[in-house]
Order: sequence, then structure tokens, then C-alpha cells
Amino acid sequence: MEQRTEVASLGEFGLIDRLTKNNEIRNASTIVSVGDDAAVIDHFGRQTVLSTDLLLEGIHFDLSYTPLKHLGYKSVIVNLSDIYAMNATPTQVLVSIGFSNRVSVEALDEFYAGVYAACEEHHVDLVGGDTSSSQKGLIISVTAIGEVAPDKFVQRSGAKDKDLICVSGELGGAFLGLTLLEREKKIFETTGAQPDLEGQSYIVGRILKPQARKDVIADFASSGLQPTSMMDISDGLSSDLLHICKESNVGCVLYEDKLPVNEDARAFAYKLQLDPTACALSGGEDYELLFTIAQEDYDKVKNNPLYSVIGYITPPEEGKHIITRAGNKHALVAQGWNHMKEH
Amino acid sequence: MEQRTEVASLGEFGLIDRLTKNNEIRNASTIVSVGDDAAVIDHFGRQTVLSTDLLLEGIHFDLSYTPLKHLGYKSVIVNLSDIYAMNATPTQVLVSIGFSNRVSVEALDEFYAGVYAACEEHHVDLVGGDTSSSQKGLIISVTAIGEVAPDKFVQRSGAKDKDLICVSGELGGAFLGLTLLEREKKIFETTGAQPDLEGQSYIVGRILKPQARKDVIADFASSGLQPTSMMDISDGLSSDLLHICKESNVGCVLYEDKLPVNEDARAFAYKLQLDPTACALSGGEDYELLFTIAQEDYDKVKNNPLYSVIGYITPPEEGKHIITRAGNKHALVAQGWNHMKEH
Repeated sequence: MEQRTEVASLGEFGLIDRLTKNNEIRNASTIVSVGDDAAVIDHFGRQTVLSTDLLLEGIHFDLSYTPLKHLGYKSVIVNLSDIYAMNATPTQVLVSIGFSNRVSVEALDEFYAGVYAACEEHHVDLVGGDTSSSQKGLIISVTAIGEVAPDKFVQRSGAKDKDLICVSGELGGAFLGLTLLEREKKIFETTGAQPDLEGQSYIVGRILKPQARKDVIADFASSGLQPTSMMDISDGLSSDLLHICKESNVGCVLYEDKLPVNEDARAFAYKLQLDPTACALSGGEDYELLFTIAQEDYDKVKNNPLYSVIGYITPPEEGKHIITRAGNKHALVAQGWNHMKEH
Repeated sequence: MEQRTEVASLGEFGLIDRLTKNNEIRNASTIVSVGDDAAVIDHFGRQTVLSTDLLLEGIHFDLSYTPLKHLGYKSVIVNLSDIYAMNATPTQVLVSIGFSNRVSVEALDEFYAGVYAACEEHHVDLVGGDTSSSQKGLIISVTAIGEVAPDKFVQRSGAKDKDLICVSGELGGAFLGLTLLEREKKIFETTGAQPDLEGQSYIVGRILKPQARKDVIADFASSGLQPTSMMDISDGLSSDLLHICKESNVGCVLYEDKLPVNEDARAFAYKLQLDPTACALSGGEDYELLFTIAQEDYDKVKNNPLYSVIGYITPPEEGKHIITRAGNKHALVAQGWNHMKEH
């Protein structure tokens, strides 16, 4: 039988002591960390980048198929992804958690094990947060801080006519992983049959343990590539690219045959009679980086397995389109993640 | 009839546009604000201070007697108080909010009106956040960022033997205000009688609209006073002073007759047959600053209406005590806020 310690038996400060006892300081800039009213960070004239996200049970995650360690890991990763999407390097995170009395200390240990794993992988320090009881459901709030050399940050608003549209990694996998998990959950609830995730580790990993593209930012630095605009794909490629177009006041053309879709994901989509292109365009939570570059920088991305060049930017009056494999031109529409989940 | 707009009719981005349309940038250091993946802040070599708090409906606030504008204001203020408690100046905040479909856009407008009022009063910028639907209850997470001249920050761990213990303002009022509001709520639920808050604006203001002590930090700067330790009083004087003692490895002596209690608060305590000293020691949420200073700095606080000198620091082996008006010595115990609420 697993040990279960009631949170109440530790008290708030006992709990914090326990949850932070293995917290390591990795950056010289971290002067004061967990345990005081606030964290102190030294900067030496670089620019500080901040991002925050709420993750709520029943809205953003389902504990019936999300291990707490994965949840802690992902909660940090999705925030680091926002920092990388600014072309910045994450340095610190603050993690707050609200939980009901059904949550044991061991469960919180698992959650924080995931938090620390993400911190270690990305060389960031957990420097603060808050813990609270909640009446119902697990509530997570993460704030990430990063730094960037003066004026090297990349916004959504800088895309220019004729720029190339690029994306890292592969798209649609997280949506397909979620679809599989939701399907297996329903089957379990109806028939009691254990989930069958055989051979689907790629898509399940994409939803439960997404990666933040540290390697992409490192590659930009080493090749000297400065994207003209960038964001991370959380809502889905269409929705997020339309954001860049709106903020930059430009149009765009995408090519269906250029969209990077993993072979396992494609096979599973066909099995469910879903269109892999629709999954790539509208599935969310891939946490890949979507960015635009000036044409003269094409040499810095071509033949690099990190990237796919998937289209180009146009003047705003030309609209936003996708060219299908058959050569047809369709308007690009924002059918995000939430839309797909409902159907 | 009041207008009610469903949040769904605006969509997430429409909602953010609406909620941030009056957002003013006040600090030259704010380079990128709301509307991108993350905020960018320039620092010029000063030290950055970060703090975050979760505020959850049913745990930290009760909407049956808390106006949303006050809640927005207080959510920011309690975080700024943590920044001041480091002897730092707040510069930016991130505000995240999760809400169910019973919350209208007008209600969110009210909440943000309070957020912006606090920002304006303290000259800070709202630079980001997150919005989400929640299954149940209002969920608020605020992160505050501040700056401080190199190595001028004040921690909880610096109190030394013979230092004087000081506190700003007056104590116990917020607890008495909460007690009154809870009592009137029960009367309303039982009898339908409208709340009678006549003549109690001081204590009600202390709980619903607390102040963060910007003026104290400004006074430290102008008098050249560097406290040896400091924290803000959120759990109650006893509990928070015991924290300073633990972190500094020291003991303390408090004097009952030195504890600053407002006359209106004292009168209301007597009316409820509560001990005003117990309210000052164990009532929380006063958000006053508790700090220690070296004896040679006494001239910088004496005769200053901002402060009361309430005791002194001792070696750890002498323990933590309070001397009553009658001259008796009692051990100081941490009966925080939550304890009092339960009884």
C-alpha cells in the first residue's frame, strides 16, 4: 500500500520546506529564492522577460489520465515555451498550486518532481510561488522569467511581406494524443477495459510531455538568425499564424504539402478517419515555434532538420490562404483546439 | 437593469482587448507589455524582485460581501506589499484570472477597474497575465515584480540581538472587519436583515481595501534607514514575528502596551467581547510592515507617526515572549488568522 500523508499534518511551512528541500540554485543571478516574501534576481543590464499561465483541472488537464509528475513537468514547459517564443533564455520560474484535501503530500511530491525535472532540463531556478487549499480541483499558476540580450527579443508584430514562414518540429501529434486518451477514457468508463496505448507512445508523449524548443533558440544564436516574428503554437497553427498576421498587418500563403506531420501521427489520424492536415492546422498544444524570417536568411534554415519552411508572408490585401496538395486555394480559418475538442 | 454581456460573445482575445484597452504604460523600463507571449522589462543593472499569490474564492475571499472592484484592488495590493517588504519598489504586475460562466464582462470590468486603480496608485504596469474559464469559483493569481538598488533588499533572516522591533500603522483592524462582515452575512442569511456597517468604515476598509506601505519604503529611503529584517504582516503579528525569529535564529520580547491598535477597532473588539491585544497579535491581513532595526537607528523611527517600536530582539536561548500590561511574561504563540476564523 502506498503511504499517504495528509497535507494538514505538515502545515503550510512544513509543506513548503518539504517541497523545496531539493531545490537547486543554478544561476548566479539568483540572489534570493524560495522562503522570503519575494525572489531577487540580478540582471547586469540584460532584458528580463516574464510570462504566466493558469492551468486548471477540468479545463486544461484531466487527472484521470495525466500523471502528476507529467503535469508538473508540462506546467513549467508551457511557460518556458512562451519565453523561448520571445527568443529569450528562461532563468527562473514561480509555481503556485491550490489543491483540495483529497491531494496527498505524495501526490504533491510527484507534481514537484516533474517541476524540478523541467527546471533541470532547462537550467532554470524555481524561485518562489504560493500554496493554498482549494475548495475543488487542482489549480496551477506558473510565472516564468527569462533574459535576452538588449533588443534581440522577437515579437508577433514584425512579419514583413515576402518573409518566409517556418515552423520547428512536427504538428498535430498532441491533438491526436489527446483524442486517443479521451477515447480510451470513455471506453474505460463504459466497459472497464484498460487503456490500450500500444504503439502510440509518440502521440501520447506529445500531449503528456511536450517539449519547449530550447534547441531552436540555441540554433538561432549560433547561426546568427534573427526571426522577424515568432510565437509558440499552443492554440493551433492556423489560429496562431492568423495572430501573427493580425499583429503584423500582413497576409500569408501556406502549402499543405509542406506541413510537417509525424508518420505515427498520420497513421493514427487515418485510423480515426481524421484529416492529418486538419490536425496539423487546428490541433493545439504542440508547443513548436512558428516564426518568420527575411528571404536572405533562407540559407540558415534550409536543409536543417529542425525546421520546415511552410509558406510566405504577403501584403495584407491578399488575405490568408492555404494551397492544398491538389493546388486549390482556401481561406485559412482559425479552428482552434477548443473547437476540435467539441466536435 | 444592468447590462450583462456574456464573456463568450467577446471571445478570449476580444475579452483581453477590452480588459486592457485602458492599460497605461508608466515605466520607461516596460518595453513589451500585454499582447505578446511574454513581457520584456529593461533593468539597467538594478535587482529584480518577484512575488506571486493565489487568491481563491471560498478560501481567500467571499463574493457575498466583497465588491469585485475591491477584490481586484486587493489582489494587486497584497502582492505589492510583498515587494515593499523586501525594501523594493514595485514596477510591474501580471494578473491571471479564471472564472465560471456566471461571471459577466461587466463583473470583469469591475475587477480590472480595481486592478488598474491599485496599479495607478503604486505607479506599476500591468504587463501580462492569463485568462481562463473555470469549472467553479473565481481564481486569481498575481505576480508582482519590483526593483531595488544592489544589495539594499531586506530579508527575514537579518535580525540581530538587541535590534528594535518596529511595525508600521495599526494592527487587528482587518480581522475585526472580517468578523463584522461574517456576522452580518449570517444575520442576513438567517433573518434577511440588511447588513449594518454603520460607523465601522475603518475596520471594513481594513479588510476590503488594505493598503501597501509605499510610504514606509519612501521614508526609509529619505532617512537612510536600512532595516535588518522585514516582512509584511499577512498571517498575524505573532506568527510573522516568529518567522523572523526562526529565520534569523533569535528570540524576542514584545510589550503589550506598545501594540498599535486603532480606537475604532478597540471599541468594536470590546463590543464583541474580544481582546484587542489578541486581535492585534493574531488577526491577519493587516499588510503592515514588521521590521527590525539596529539600536543606533532609533532616532530615525522615534516620534515618527508611521511607526511603533513594540519590542526588541534577544539571543535565541531567551525564547519569544510578550510582557503584558500587568507585567506578566507569556510565551508568544502563533495563533494565526485561520485559527481565529475557526473559533
